[in-house]
Amino acid sequence: MIDSAAASAPYPWLKDRFNRIATLQEASSMLGWDASVMMPPGGAAARGDQLALLAGMAHELLVDPATGDALASAARTPPADLWDRRNLQLMQHAHIRATALPGDLVMAISRACSSCEKIWREARAQNDFARVRPALGEVINLTRQSANALAPVLGLSPYDALMDGFQQGIGAADVAPVFAAYETFIAEALPRAEELQHNHPAPVPLGGPFPEADQESLCRFLAERAGLDFTRARLDRSTHPFSGGTHTDLRITTRYDTANVASAMMGVLHETGHALYEAGLPDAWNRQPVGEAAGMAAHESQSLIVEMQACRSDPYLSWLGPVLKERFGGDADAYSPGNLAALWRRVERGFIRVDADEMTYPAHVILRFRLEQALIDGSLTVADLPAAWNEGLKTLLGIVPPDDRHGCLQDIHWYDGAFGYFPSYTLGAMAAAQLMEAARDATPGLDEALGRGDLSPLVAWLRTEVHERGNLLGFNDLLRAATGKPLDPAAFLTHLRQRYLD
Amino acid sequence: MIDSAAASAPYPWLKDRFNRIATLQEASSMLGWDASVMMPPGGAAARGDQLALLAGMAHELLVDPATGDALASAARTPPADLWDRRNLQLMQHAHIRATALPGDLVMAISRACSSCEKIWREARAQNDFARVRPALGEVINLTRQSANALAPVLGLSPYDALMDGFQQGIGAADVAPVFAAYETFIAEALPRAEELQHNHPAPVPLGGPFPEADQESLCRFLAERAGLDFTRARLDRSTHPFSGGTHTDLRITTRYDTANVASAMMGVLHETGHALYEAGLPDAWNRQPVGEAAGMAAHESQSLIVEMQACRSDPYLSWLGPVLKERFGGDADAYSPGNLAALWRRVERGFIRVDADEMTYPAHVILRFRLEQALIDGSLTVADLPAAWNEGLKTLLGIVPPDDRHGCLQDIHWYDGAFGYFPSYTLGAMAAAQLMEAARDATPGLDEALGRGDLSPLVAWLRTEVHERGNLLGFNDLLRAATGKPLDPAAFLTHLRQRYLD
Repeated sequence: MIDSAAASAPYPWLKDRFNRIATLQEASSMLGWDASVMMPPGGAAARGDQLALLAGMAHELLVDPATGDALASAARTPPADLWDRRNLQLMQHAHIRATALPGDLVMAISRACSSCEKIWREARAQNDFARVRPALGEVINLTRQSANALAPVLGLSPYDALMDGFQQGIGAADVAPVFAAYETFIAEALPRAEELQHNHPAPVPLGGPFPEADQESLCRFLAERAGLDFTRARLDRSTHPFSGGTHTDLRITTRYDTANVASAMMGVLHETGHALYEAGLPDAWNRQPVGEAAGMAAHESQSLIVEMQACRSDPYLSWLGPVLKERFGGDADAYSPGNLAALWRRVERGFIRVDADEMTYPAHVILRFRLEQALIDGSLTVADLPAAWNEGLKTLLGIVPPDDRHGCLQDIHWYDGAFGYFPSYTLGAMAAAQLMEAARDATPGLDEALGRGDLSPLVAWLRTEVHERGNLLGFNDLLRAATGKPLDPAAFLTHLRQRYLD
Repeated sequence: MIDSAAASAPYPWLKDRFNRIATLQEASSMLGWDASVMMPPGGAAARGDQLALLAGMAHELLVDPATGDALASAARTPPADLWDRRNLQLMQHAHIRATALPGDLVMAISRACSSCEKIWREARAQNDFARVRPALGEVINLTRQSANALAPVLGLSPYDALMDGFQQGIGAADVAPVFAAYETFIAEALPRAEELQHNHPAPVPLGGPFPEADQESLCRFLAERAGLDFTRARLDRSTHPFSGGTHTDLRITTRYDTANVASAMMGVLHETGHALYEAGLPDAWNRQPVGEAAGMAAHESQSLIVEMQACRSDPYLSWLGPVLKERFGGDADAYSPGNLAALWRRVERGFIRVDADEMTYPAHVILRFRLEQALIDGSLTVADLPAAWNEGLKTLLGIVPPDDRHGCLQDIHWYDGAFGYFPSYTLGAMAAAQLMEAARDATPGLDEALGRGDLSPLVAWLRTEVHERGNLLGFNDLLRAATGKPLDPAAFLTHLRQRYLD
């Protein structure tokens, strides 16, 4: 009966099948959230089994020959509607990626990553790269096999086939010139920004301590005011902040440091940007590929436009200062917009990516982008990675990590098999600046609203121009539709210039 | 490949399949917990889809003809080991039940129950039985069809086929004499207990208010001291207390009433009993039918042995009083064991089952047991239910509900399609008394330990005699193995006599 439905009306049959796949993924997302936020340690092993089974069942539905037959059949008479047509393309793309990899390679990668990640935790703690070298070598070897299997079926280079898994439609050739423009800029801009910063008086630290419960109440208030609807969302605590859940049930998390209110607050605003994107995706295409976000760079653009563009702007900080003063008390001067800007928009050459400011952050990404390409194409061996890392950071930022813990051991990504992901961070930062420029042009009063802590004009524009488009267009065409041009680093560099050099 | 494994080694193949089914059920259990405890309202519709899909996938694995073939093949050379043999029987039983019902009947029941339950909520609020009458009629009609479909394949009467879904191996003919013995007892004992109670001074109320956070801390302390390991469990809040989760990740819930500390406290001890049973099930048979609890009556025996037998006993109350006094302050006399017993072991003829004391509770169950048999066999019409209810309660307890909200509208069970479940409550209460008697005989110092708030001798005995046996024996043989005899109401009646009449 299923087969005859698949044959007579293949596209509706496929929509039903992808709906099931997405529903399984929703269940996984919720169980993943629970594992990070709620689960007692005793549940870990069973949870691993539950998640593996759900992932396996979703994969089976995707690679099922019946899915392939229905795709081939549907492609012969593609749907007329633009959304449907794109939906079918995205289904085909997902099926091609899933079937290109032999099952035993997928299992081998999963095992190798899981093992490598565990060893990495010890190696990082002990600052001992040699310890994780063999495991990382195995992960890279298997990732290369996977890239080589994906490349021909996708018509991409092996590295681009990996990037495609995170941000479809963007390859190394698109990224390289954008990154080069940044590199030229930073060589001159960073010393100037540092000099300007040096000539200003040092910022006054905020008082504190900031009790966790009060920070949580503040974060909830700010997220809600930024547009998050708590009848469809939760804010909880986890070791590593993240945004998860589903379109109508969003789960964001943070952690609290009683000495530092900015960490949780800016973290929550960042995750709120991710959650607003998911909440704003088109209801009519829920659980269909075309109704999903337009990739990881697009997602990062939404978190960064809220956190970096809106909530670290002068007008927002001028509103936020008195809010904080009222909630936490302390020195009024410390809460002035100028002081908050000096505290929270501080440029600093550092070793650790996740602590980096927005001006130097792309340098960290560029380093990884170059190194991971070399690791995948074999021109860089794992043994040579630490030296290449240190050399690269010296070239980009003029500093050399004191040890591998501050160097090539700092990020989980490679050790967990995520190659091709890093560029998304900086593509997202650039897209955020480009979108903010367009939103300002299109929305009179946007900054005045930010000066009242009100993001609604910005979010309304994003909803129409970004969220509600789902994955109809893909990253580049989405930017073109929303801003009139494809990804262009100019807006980001202008933003950095205005914020740090003017 | 799967088929050849199923043919050459059918029992291992079946174990793998039932492991998958159980793992899907674990995922459902966790998502159900989340829906009751964590989920914002916006998530409800999507969660319904997720749970329906997981249930559907588990059902598909169970009714799959390949499962039937493997069961038939495995039955031809049954495994030698007792546990394996029982496991195979339970697999067959589950398959028979699942395949006996046509898919469209299962869907119709699910829809009818879901609709009836919604109407019932309004009907109960408005005290308007007529409103839910048609929907309940439809549920009963479909339940009868289901019972008639199950009866011949199980070799049971239609009503017993329904009971079998909750407590395999116990039918109406087993229950009727046990309930009759209780009814004879209560006719004489209840007036005597009331008289004795009347001749005592009225209990002193505890002071209060009892802040929620302090109650929660107390409940956690008591659950942990009763043996619950919080590295494998959580205690949270929900509208209706329940016990859920999985063998290594137990989730119990309660609600807090600041005027009444006993409600949450006794509720948590009750759910702790359920959770200790799940925690104590045999690791080696995790995710296999033989590794599950021995039915709902067995489960209820474990909650009631902790709450009613252990934690409302004189020695436990003598320890608990000072604990409460220290945590909440107030009048020392109120915390005396005698006063706590007078407060928390009070006999009262009431209309509402969930508020009933342990002496009158079985009367509520017997009423429902008789009425639901008559509803299923058609000798009682839905239109005549309210009158039959009121007449029945008058016969059993000598009181008549003032309206249907206090009568046949009070419980969700029937409106949600659960026919054949009610007897489990009283079978559990009787089994709890029988098990407690055996535990006391076998465990010197059990009561002395309760006098220190220490349940470990009791729980150690239960672990060996009940928990670790999983569903190897079934309810009756489990009782026989643990206590030397099958279910016998004598211990329960002796318990009531000692607690309320001596």
